[in-house]
Amino acid sequence: MGMPMEVQTVIVTKGKEQRVQGNVFVLKKEGYRLYPLDVPLEVRRTVQSEASGVAVVRKLEWEDNRTTVTYELVSLYSTN
Amino acid sequence: MGMPMEVQTVIVTKGKEQRVQGNVFVLKKEGYRLYPLDVPLEVRRTVQSEASGVAVVRKLEWEDNRTTVTYELVSLYSTN
Amino acid sequence: MGMPMEVQTVIVTKGKEQRVQGNVFVLKKEGYRLYPLDVPLEVRRTVQSEASGVAVVRKLEWEDNRTTVTYELVSLYSTN
Amino acid sequence: MGMPMEVQTVIVTKGKEQRVQGNVFVLKKEGYRLYPLDVPLEVRRTVQSEASGVAVVRKLEWEDNRTTVTYELVSLYSTN
Repeated sequence: MGMPMEVQTVIVTKGKEQRVQGNVFVLKKEGYRLYPLDVPLEVRRTVQSEASGVAVVRKLEWEDNRTTVTYELVSLYSTN
Repeated sequence: MGMPMEVQTVIVTKGKEQRVQGNVFVLKKEGYRLYPLDVPLEVRRTVQSEASGVAVVRKLEWEDNRTTVTYELVSLYSTN
Repeated sequence: MGMPMEVQTVIVTKGKEQRVQGNVFVLKKEGYRLYPLDVPLEVRRTVQSEASGVAVVRKLEWEDNRTTVTYELVSLYSTN
Repeated sequence: MGMPMEVQTVIVTKGKEQRVQGNVFVLKKEGYRLYPLDVPLEVRRTVQSEASGVAVVRKLEWEDNRTTVTYELVSLYSTN
């Protein structure tokens, strides 16, 4: 009688994010993942990589053991 | 740097649920509310009322400090 | 960068609860499990069994991938 | 029938942390706050201040609408 989920502190994209418009991206993940909304979160390409920017989650959807997270990139670190 | 939310153990409808089709209903609530998905939850009209049935949450959406929960009524208690 | 946990809607004891005093019991579980505090939860001996009573969680501790939950039994169903 | 809580992404001490031993500190907060365990979290003195270091939460306790979090400081930023 429990629901497994994972509380996230970082958005790890693995390059699978899709741009919706402007700085808004959508990312789909397996399982139920809780990304806190409306607060700044680091964005990384992989768990080990440096932060590529900071985003704010604007929408979170859970269905069929999948998570869809919509986030707005609010700052982007340069990678020169 | 925190996200307020409320973990729910019962679906309290206050009569605001809308039937989508068959036994599937949608309910909108203020704030971020976590209704565990894929497990049976009691449905009540008010916090104090008796359970009117049992439902399973199939979809949960959070956006703009609002929650949209889609649930399937799996059993209905008679109210004679 | 995530923490796996499981949101619980029922206290399943598997007979491993230990009485602390009066109606207060302690139960240890593997993993991080979130039992909502200060609200009534059903108590069952197994996932499939009937509810044996209703309890309110008074304390929750997470450490070393284990959960310790302290709950007060507030009503007990007879089992004739 | 819900439990209000707040998901945290940063440890904000407001200077109220108490050293237990070595790099281990305890912090008490009002309300139920979920600090993800076993993953690195930024530590700040105030919400607005710069990160003072990185910590890993080792223990989380919830009781009487209060949270006690035990964390290990794993790196400390210099503040010259």
